[in-house]
Amino acid sequence: MSDEQERQGLMARYRQVRATTEQLCAPLAPDDFQIQSIPQTSPPKWHLAHVSWFFENFVLPLFSNYRPYHPLFGHLFNSYYQSVGEPFPRPDRGLLSRPTVGEIYGYRRYVDEQMLALLTAVSNDRWPELQNRVVLGLNHEQQHQELLLMDIKHNLSISPLFPAYRDDLPQNGIAATEMGWQEQHGGLYEIGAAGGEFAFDNETPRHRVLVNDHRLADRFVTNGEYLAFIEDGGYRDARLWLADGWALINQRGWQQPLYWRQRDGEWREFTLAGIRSLNPAEPVCHLSYYEADAYACWAGKRLPREEELELALTQRPLSGNFVESDRLHPAPASSDGQWFGDLWAWTASSYGAYPGFRPLAGSLGEYNGKFMANQMVLKGGSCATPQQHCRASYRNFFYPDERWAFCGLRLAEDL
Amino acid sequence: MSDEQERQGLMARYRQVRATTEQLCAPLAPDDFQIQSIPQTSPPKWHLAHVSWFFENFVLPLFSNYRPYHPLFGHLFNSYYQSVGEPFPRPDRGLLSRPTVGEIYGYRRYVDEQMLALLTAVSNDRWPELQNRVVLGLNHEQQHQELLLMDIKHNLSISPLFPAYRDDLPQNGIAATEMGWQEQHGGLYEIGAAGGEFAFDNETPRHRVLVNDHRLADRFVTNGEYLAFIEDGGYRDARLWLADGWALINQRGWQQPLYWRQRDGEWREFTLAGIRSLNPAEPVCHLSYYEADAYACWAGKRLPREEELELALTQRPLSGNFVESDRLHPAPASSDGQWFGDLWAWTASSYGAYPGFRPLAGSLGEYNGKFMANQMVLKGGSCATPQQHCRASYRNFFYPDERWAFCGLRLAEDL
Amino acid sequence: MSDEQERQGLMARYRQVRATTEQLCAPLAPDDFQIQSIPQTSPPKWHLAHVSWFFENFVLPLFSNYRPYHPLFGHLFNSYYQSVGEPFPRPDRGLLSRPTVGEIYGYRRYVDEQMLALLTAVSNDRWPELQNRVVLGLNHEQQHQELLLMDIKHNLSISPLFPAYRDDLPQNGIAATEMGWQEQHGGLYEIGAAGGEFAFDNETPRHRVLVNDHRLADRFVTNGEYLAFIEDGGYRDARLWLADGWALINQRGWQQPLYWRQRDGEWREFTLAGIRSLNPAEPVCHLSYYEADAYACWAGKRLPREEELELALTQRPLSGNFVESDRLHPAPASSDGQWFGDLWAWTASSYGAYPGFRPLAGSLGEYNGKFMANQMVLKGGSCATPQQHCRASYRNFFYPDERWAFCGLRLAEDL
Amino acid sequence: MSDEQERQGLMARYRQVRATTEQLCAPLAPDDFQIQSIPQTSPPKWHLAHVSWFFENFVLPLFSNYRPYHPLFGHLFNSYYQSVGEPFPRPDRGLLSRPTVGEIYGYRRYVDEQMLALLTAVSNDRWPELQNRVVLGLNHEQQHQELLLMDIKHNLSISPLFPAYRDDLPQNGIAATEMGWQEQHGGLYEIGAAGGEFAFDNETPRHRVLVNDHRLADRFVTNGEYLAFIEDGGYRDARLWLADGWALINQRGWQQPLYWRQRDGEWREFTLAGIRSLNPAEPVCHLSYYEADAYACWAGKRLPREEELELALTQRPLSGNFVESDRLHPAPASSDGQWFGDLWAWTASSYGAYPGFRPLAGSLGEYNGKFMANQMVLKGGSCATPQQHCRASYRNFFYPDERWAFCGLRLAEDL
Repeated sequence: MSDEQERQGLMARYRQVRATTEQLCAPLAPDDFQIQSIPQTSPPKWHLAHVSWFFENFVLPLFSNYRPYHPLFGHLFNSYYQSVGEPFPRPDRGLLSRPTVGEIYGYRRYVDEQMLALLTAVSNDRWPELQNRVVLGLNHEQQHQELLLMDIKHNLSISPLFPAYRDDLPQNGIAATEMGWQEQHGGLYEIGAAGGEFAFDNETPRHRVLVNDHRLADRFVTNGEYLAFIEDGGYRDARLWLADGWALINQRGWQQPLYWRQRDGEWREFTLAGIRSLNPAEPVCHLSYYEADAYACWAGKRLPREEELELALTQRPLSGNFVESDRLHPAPASSDGQWFGDLWAWTASSYGAYPGFRPLAGSLGEYNGKFMANQMVLKGGSCATPQQHCRASYRNFFYPDERWAFCGLRLAEDL
Repeated sequence: MSDEQERQGLMARYRQVRATTEQLCAPLAPDDFQIQSIPQTSPPKWHLAHVSWFFENFVLPLFSNYRPYHPLFGHLFNSYYQSVGEPFPRPDRGLLSRPTVGEIYGYRRYVDEQMLALLTAVSNDRWPELQNRVVLGLNHEQQHQELLLMDIKHNLSISPLFPAYRDDLPQNGIAATEMGWQEQHGGLYEIGAAGGEFAFDNETPRHRVLVNDHRLADRFVTNGEYLAFIEDGGYRDARLWLADGWALINQRGWQQPLYWRQRDGEWREFTLAGIRSLNPAEPVCHLSYYEADAYACWAGKRLPREEELELALTQRPLSGNFVESDRLHPAPASSDGQWFGDLWAWTASSYGAYPGFRPLAGSLGEYNGKFMANQMVLKGGSCATPQQHCRASYRNFFYPDERWAFCGLRLAEDL
Repeated sequence: MSDEQERQGLMARYRQVRATTEQLCAPLAPDDFQIQSIPQTSPPKWHLAHVSWFFENFVLPLFSNYRPYHPLFGHLFNSYYQSVGEPFPRPDRGLLSRPTVGEIYGYRRYVDEQMLALLTAVSNDRWPELQNRVVLGLNHEQQHQELLLMDIKHNLSISPLFPAYRDDLPQNGIAATEMGWQEQHGGLYEIGAAGGEFAFDNETPRHRVLVNDHRLADRFVTNGEYLAFIEDGGYRDARLWLADGWALINQRGWQQPLYWRQRDGEWREFTLAGIRSLNPAEPVCHLSYYEADAYACWAGKRLPREEELELALTQRPLSGNFVESDRLHPAPASSDGQWFGDLWAWTASSYGAYPGFRPLAGSLGEYNGKFMANQMVLKGGSCATPQQHCRASYRNFFYPDERWAFCGLRLAEDL
Repeated sequence: MSDEQERQGLMARYRQVRATTEQLCAPLAPDDFQIQSIPQTSPPKWHLAHVSWFFENFVLPLFSNYRPYHPLFGHLFNSYYQSVGEPFPRPDRGLLSRPTVGEIYGYRRYVDEQMLALLTAVSNDRWPELQNRVVLGLNHEQQHQELLLMDIKHNLSISPLFPAYRDDLPQNGIAATEMGWQEQHGGLYEIGAAGGEFAFDNETPRHRVLVNDHRLADRFVTNGEYLAFIEDGGYRDARLWLADGWALINQRGWQQPLYWRQRDGEWREFTLAGIRSLNPAEPVCHLSYYEADAYACWAGKRLPREEELELALTQRPLSGNFVESDRLHPAPASSDGQWFGDLWAWTASSYGAYPGFRPLAGSLGEYNGKFMANQMVLKGGSCATPQQHCRASYRNFFYPDERWAFCGLRLAEDL
């Protein structure tokens, strides 16, 4: 591919990713842009600005005489990069009515103009470096596309009106397949990013791992199966729970997954399409690591390890219920099983450094490495993930008590 | 006045008060309607809805076959009336993006239509009762007009952009008058609402009080005077402070009034006109009871008692820097002194029941009486109070650590 | 009385008060000296040391070349006097195993020797000043005698073993008298310390107050009467409660007075004699101001005002169920009514400065004045108060949510 | 070994372990038995009772008609076994003055009599099962011997008197060795308990692991080396820290290891021998995982992985500065390096289940397995660990913010 084609390709991709972010916000009322329902979520308008700040801070000044759009935006829209200045306090993002949504769209326009001009004008010798940075920035923005959907869902869930983000989303059928099992022989395998395509630093280096004989369920645990756990007293039996999990569910009064609501004895679930009857065939979603682990214990199984799931994903095509399916909710498994997409699967692996891991140089080293404590790895992508953004080696990570990601529960077993 | 004139008069007043509320919101960006910067403030859109709910809940169903606008609005927009259902949690008001601002304006239109129809149609025998309720509802809405200004100011103060609510507000001059003193002989006096005009239940019954010889400062303490207290180490000298105040300022790191900011050694103050240089001639405002008391201690004086200030106000015309002056900030005292308006003066009197006090019957009994613990009385109205809403017997009340009201500091002394 | 007799008298009283403090600790196991069950209580060993520190800090160095017992005791045993150094953090007093109880008794011996030597040796011209200070120090120690009993009771209540502080305390009978009412004509009266005998600064100056016609119950509300309030749903009816009280009882799950326990449907009460069946004839004790106020509201009455109760006490002999009765629990009222002793009665008066109040000079000014915010006045002394320490003008004060004092509930009513 | 010899041997070991626990408490003042300085520590008297409860609950009733010593001790002295009843709240253990220390020693006597009678009387066919349980109970008590020393140290550290637990402990010399490195070829190795000797369930099953080429420091990082990190601004440079660690040290104001104190520019360290000058040759101890990790980052190294350290330990004799050395503080490394003892080394491995892990059956399954989340593995034993209790496969575990264990910092590096 010629250099010019590469430039045109990247510019097209830049435009596409940036436009997708705004399309995701199109169904929102002006009021919705402002909400931060818990410290972990961010107002949609903050996401719109932050992803632009990423280009403004990590790309534009490196290649041009860039003049920042506003002297305070670097403070307001820095997420967590301590080495580039003190970020505005995260839990207070929802308290900032100014800049307004309109002003933030103006900011986006400005950054877009500057970025596209830069992509046109940069010299060939600096092209590879620019390309790397831009690809990283676009992957970053895609992460925030998923965060936008996660956060919008949580933000809307606060209102007793149970408003729908979209009213044109399809309903899933209620037919469930039997849970099947995929066996895997033990041995030495390689995992991690193989190079060639984009990957985050935390997926590297590719390295050997020792895997034992095991088998993995070929689909997620369903709402119906999880309901049996609840009805069997799962939330009241301490023996099933990790100590931290038992303390947590008692302290917070958790008796069901995040978005389940009971009314007049009937279970309902809040979704991006509003509230609706619980579909027993759909995968159970929005549960914590502790709940996933307790269910596995109750079922006499365990959660998969990171490397087991990566191996299984490597053997399947990169397709499934991603955001492009425009369902925005997990779907019942088909007879082919359920691997990529639908939900991020909690693994039993804590998020740590691969042997020989080196973070990116400079401030971008703060992107992934400094979170390698107290979090668990999740694999496979979800119905809110851009397909292009996902791959077998992708390592998502959340704290074990966090439930607002599109996360689910897959069983594993030693052989 | 004929009955028909009374009706027309009340309808006109209804229209005027309701319109004023909306005019106060006119300068807001859509984003501003959503903010709740601290649990004590409410989003402007919530105020817009709550004052309508007051008519919907306490007026309309008593006189007509009223159909509520939405089955959940009674839950969402009930502030604290436990006896009419469980209110939506106060600290979470800012998390409700739905109903939207647009929907809330629709709600206001609906309530207005019903109210005006009722005012036209109600029978003469029920008119007095309706009139009482509507006047209460309008006074309630005027309280929320002041709360709107207080809350908007606090909400905007969070952004480091220091946005102005209005950019057409006048600047005050910097000339300060000498503080004079008004003497008052002790004796038995009457305070409380005398009847004839509207008053809240907590202003009744009118009763005798014993007052000692004393004198009151004829104006508020100024920024310049308060700055001398700060520069003298006032915030670092425990002996000047009530124990709870000392604990508080150390825990929260308070070293100045709420809206003062220091930059490069210069003091500035955030106002509804944005940030500007501290004007030494203006009354110091937005300080807690503890700060007011510590200043008085430092100055060798004390704060006035509720009855002392009421007596003084009774002897003056009900005029001053109220919201109609359209300054929205306290102004330096004139040579006539400073009594009504500008700022609510903290008194040394805790907010309690007058001898023989009876709350209103029914749910409206929750309006004032249940707050008679742990709060202090403030008197005189402020630059954010509608003049029509104020009077000498008015008892405002806040917790001693609250600073976001337009409150100020007047000195007193025994003779 | 000759100067020498005065000296001998004060030395005798010094010995008696100091000995009484230690007698109160005699029934304790070594383990009990160490406990601080809530931040408000202190370990008994801390009380033993603190009251000695009071003499060490506020008496001895003023009259002699006093050498402090230990360089750090001034830090460890300062309660809240900011002007004489930074006190050790109050909530951590129970974490100090050193100095040991034995070492603290050594400290007491040292201070006693120095004090008695000083009382012998001080010159006649400094005698009056010394006498004042010593009397204050002994009154201070008597306050801590009551605190010792309050704190020991709370500390022991934590153990499910419900240990008795003493097993030789008498049981009360179960006969209750009818509640009678004492009427009082309104008018101008004087309250406050009249001089002549010791009083704290907060009881001064004596001043006139305006009292309205009213009547006071001639005994406290009983357990039996309070049980009727509970059984009538008193703790579930928001309309009876101050807003702060309603929030509090729901947040803390309060459904009964502090030391009431229910087992198999039977009500029991923890006392300094251990746990025993609830005696319906005894006064209800250990309830918060909010509970007292809610009961009064339910009963259609109100709580007395400070001045009303002082007037009533002034008209009665200073006798009753004080600590010298050695019951350590309130007793059912006799046919003569119940005025001094048994329990401190919550009043409807917030604790503030009397007109013209001046705190003591110097650091002792921190004794009472700085607490004049957010607390309520209680009157009359309790079964844990030394009789000699009590008087009609005495103003005790606690926060409205505090229940561990021996406090009770007397009703009042306007005429 | 004959069955009778086995019985005599186990009885001797029972007596020895039980006596050792009490010897560790011999230097304590009565006051010291009661302290719980943070929720993680327990009062020494609670440890004394809890380890007896372990025999009372998990051994005696299984083999005899055992009558519990007191009906409530099962509640008071259950640590965290949800499946045998609700434990008394952990943070409140220090609030229980009753039962007294004396009563708890009586409890120990009772349990000892019953245990020794049982060990004599049990039938041969039930002997193996009893033996297993008793050995587990003795290992459990040895864990609490170390906890006693950890907790006593922390409890005493609260007092500004800096009391010594023992004043007869030796001082270390100040000569430090150069840090050497031990290389290890990568490959497949086996780790975990090999059977034959006692091990906890979490050390099983023995299994293969893949290890990469690496090297380990042959001694711990010293105080002197750590001081260089501090003086280089290590606590102020966010780039060195995990995000959770950075948030933590800023929230808690951590600027040095737990027991370091600075006075007049000189660094001192609190030890079980009281406060003394910081010895630069001693290993730095009582730091969190985050501090260990930040230091390693600053030094351009990393922390060892669990399996790397186990491999190294397997190759060394089980000897070192254990509790039997009676130093109770880590010592400078000798020229032979420093492997077992001195300090538990933080590893980079989160504490999780080994492949195929099965917890013990029944309630004892709560012993280790339920803590497999959010904690990190430490290896090697410390100066407070009984030598007999330690082994290469031992997995200790603490939360990454916990510092009161005798824990230290060893560096590792990839080759």
